[in-house]
Amino acid sequence: MTLTNRILVFQSDFGLLEGTVAQMYGVALQIDPDLKMVDLSHYIDKFNTWDASYSLFQTCPVFPAGTVFVSVVDPGVGTGRKSVAALTADGHYIVTPDNGTLTHLKKHVGIVALREIDESVNRLPGSEKFHVFHGRDVYAYTGARLASGVIDFTEVGRELPVDGIVCHPTPDPVVGTDQVEGMVDIKDPHFGMIWTNIPIEAFEELDIPFDTKVHIVVKYQEDIRYDKVVLYGKSFGSVPEGEDILYNNEIGYFALGTNLRSFVDLHDIASGPDWSISLEKIKTTAL
Amino acid sequence: MTLTNRILVFQSDFGLLEGTVAQMYGVALQIDPDLKMVDLSHYIDKFNTWDASYSLFQTCPVFPAGTVFVSVVDPGVGTGRKSVAALTADGHYIVTPDNGTLTHLKKHVGIVALREIDESVNRLPGSEKFHVFHGRDVYAYTGARLASGVIDFTEVGRELPVDGIVCHPTPDPVVGTDQVEGMVDIKDPHFGMIWTNIPIEAFEELDIPFDTKVHIVVKYQEDIRYDKVVLYGKSFGSVPEGEDILYNNEIGYFALGTNLRSFVDLHDIASGPDWSISLEKIKTTAL
Amino acid sequence: MTLTNRILVFQSDFGLLEGTVAQMYGVALQIDPDLKMVDLSHYIDKFNTWDASYSLFQTCPVFPAGTVFVSVVDPGVGTGRKSVAALTADGHYIVTPDNGTLTHLKKHVGIVALREIDESVNRLPGSEKFHVFHGRDVYAYTGARLASGVIDFTEVGRELPVDGIVCHPTPDPVVGTDQVEGMVDIKDPHFGMIWTNIPIEAFEELDIPFDTKVHIVVKYQEDIRYDKVVLYGKSFGSVPEGEDILYNNEIGYFALGTNLRSFVDLHDIASGPDWSISLEKIKTTAL
Repeated sequence: MTLTNRILVFQSDFGLLEGTVAQMYGVALQIDPDLKMVDLSHYIDKFNTWDASYSLFQTCPVFPAGTVFVSVVDPGVGTGRKSVAALTADGHYIVTPDNGTLTHLKKHVGIVALREIDESVNRLPGSEKFHVFHGRDVYAYTGARLASGVIDFTEVGRELPVDGIVCHPTPDPVVGTDQVEGMVDIKDPHFGMIWTNIPIEAFEELDIPFDTKVHIVVKYQEDIRYDKVVLYGKSFGSVPEGEDILYNNEIGYFALGTNLRSFVDLHDIASGPDWSISLEKIKTTAL
Repeated sequence: MTLTNRILVFQSDFGLLEGTVAQMYGVALQIDPDLKMVDLSHYIDKFNTWDASYSLFQTCPVFPAGTVFVSVVDPGVGTGRKSVAALTADGHYIVTPDNGTLTHLKKHVGIVALREIDESVNRLPGSEKFHVFHGRDVYAYTGARLASGVIDFTEVGRELPVDGIVCHPTPDPVVGTDQVEGMVDIKDPHFGMIWTNIPIEAFEELDIPFDTKVHIVVKYQEDIRYDKVVLYGKSFGSVPEGEDILYNNEIGYFALGTNLRSFVDLHDIASGPDWSISLEKIKTTAL
Repeated sequence: MTLTNRILVFQSDFGLLEGTVAQMYGVALQIDPDLKMVDLSHYIDKFNTWDASYSLFQTCPVFPAGTVFVSVVDPGVGTGRKSVAALTADGHYIVTPDNGTLTHLKKHVGIVALREIDESVNRLPGSEKFHVFHGRDVYAYTGARLASGVIDFTEVGRELPVDGIVCHPTPDPVVGTDQVEGMVDIKDPHFGMIWTNIPIEAFEELDIPFDTKVHIVVKYQEDIRYDKVVLYGKSFGSVPEGEDILYNNEIGYFALGTNLRSFVDLHDIASGPDWSISLEKIKTTAL
């Protein structure tokens, strides 16, 4: 079982406009002032457990094995949803509500073990009368105990079956003769790119090299929202300012952006299970 | 006297859009690179010393004794207001302008000692010609010296009387026969809940249990802005999406929110001394 | 050659809304979990290498010698621009694209050495197929290796001539008989002040003391956008709420603000090379 390493990473939808996140830091520092605490982001889209899940999948891999991640996107706080700690195949610990937040790590990395947080021992003493801030009272508390070695994974609580993890549906991309169809997994809310669930290896199957044009269609449910021929290039600067580009994102999937602009704003596109995308090989070199 | 512990927590109204906050970190690291620096928030409402005060009251309690907090909401920078360090009854040190920022800690926790920062020794060398950034030149500098043990509390400067601390008026809630009246202390700017100054014990006095309805009126000065019967429940998920709920917040006071929505945006409510709220027991079970 | 000190400071235009910045932290922690990582800001104006440059000039000086700064404002990612590490005359290391980001440090502090990052050794293993996130793959990776002592500066890569550094034009202020003309270097996006490139020593030359009025004109190219007589005072509180004030900013240059308001919003002013400002001595004491 992977030893933890004192690195404790937080993500939430709490924002940074006041002291909510800091209360989680304070609880962690009470447990071990030598914890190395790091923020992933506290601006995960509110209540959005799909985005919380994707965010972990995007970010966990570059952290050392043994790192503990505390994720608190918890619209069901105080209701029946379970609080869990999961161990991934990469040796990362994820402390989170079991509400879909483990979807992408389970699918793409693998969860090797799952435990339900036993709140009779893993809950901030005195917090039993509060029902709205499990981020502080359960998740930061348990995550800090795990990260610092006060408890090990077996002491989180009883084992749960991994195949019972609450997951969002994640349809796989489909490679056809000359095209591949998938979905828009997430958007970058700051720069406005969209990321797909289509791995860059699909273009090896379809024999589409860099610097060729691709026919792209994006739909919201059945409604076509984008239908264009776009260059498949190395990077944003491969096209003039204001032009769209299909490229490999930094985790190995296709993404669409606009050089020096926001693709999402320009084309009114968003992300999530209602958004599908097809990438089609253009058989002649003509536009 | 409580020993400090190298934990240095910052709050301000500076924002995080450029390097102002980082200059405070840099000064602190010059003094001691082993300080453990943590942000409470840098988005305290601009110039709002009431919110700065409430924020400390909300957040300090979960930090270990000996933690130093540097608070810089300082509309009076460069004018006659004093710069102080306070020691609370919890063993926390607060380094701040004396401009109302200590109001809630003084009232609810207690300040046991106060010292005026002697700028002839506790000021960043070379900064005497600058008058607009005491956050860096006085507060971060002094807070870091205190947190690292370079100085102890007595070396901050001369003692000041605790009862001279500048405080905002903080009227207490009033419990009547079937209702309690208080004020809206703060709002959560990200999720849109409002927090009152009415402690949850008031409902024990009035014998109002969970899962009963309560008649709530919120006023801006004399103007009624909200008048509804609302469920007193455990958590947001106790009511359907879009419905309001009265609940216990995580620091033991009543709060009002809307499940999966922003109460403040929906009902155009704000916070602060002009905003009063009454919670009234409903004597029949009918709506 | 200055030894590094494990302090690693990040700035970028990535925002904090998701895990992009955290991926840089993760790579750094893989290299050395004892790095002391600090954010300067991740809200540098998008693609704005002038602002990125000014931000470093504003913030680096208060950090201890040996600190490594990783700056990633990189509109040209994946194109021909060089990736470099610079050593400043203050003993700070800056790891950045060479795209104008070193302009102000070179001009005002001095760059004593420059090296091109050799990506055959200083690049995150396995990242060669990605072209859009040099922040993680090149800059955080190299910056962390430098900050932790895994490599020293000579091991970054081959030397480059300092006089070849890509710089924005930076016209100097001109002191005349009764006025000084310069430019608006930057604005504070949160509080709305503007900072000029006119050093406060210019008023010694012109014999303009505190608490006198100054005639100020701000132009966008040739278009006058602001023309007023303003008090030159110590701090914002030296004038009534809502009134403009000329003052010394915390790095020794003239700045314009409005007490308790946003000067930039009130007067629709911005910053950068198109924005000029003149400060003129008023020879009588009459308004």
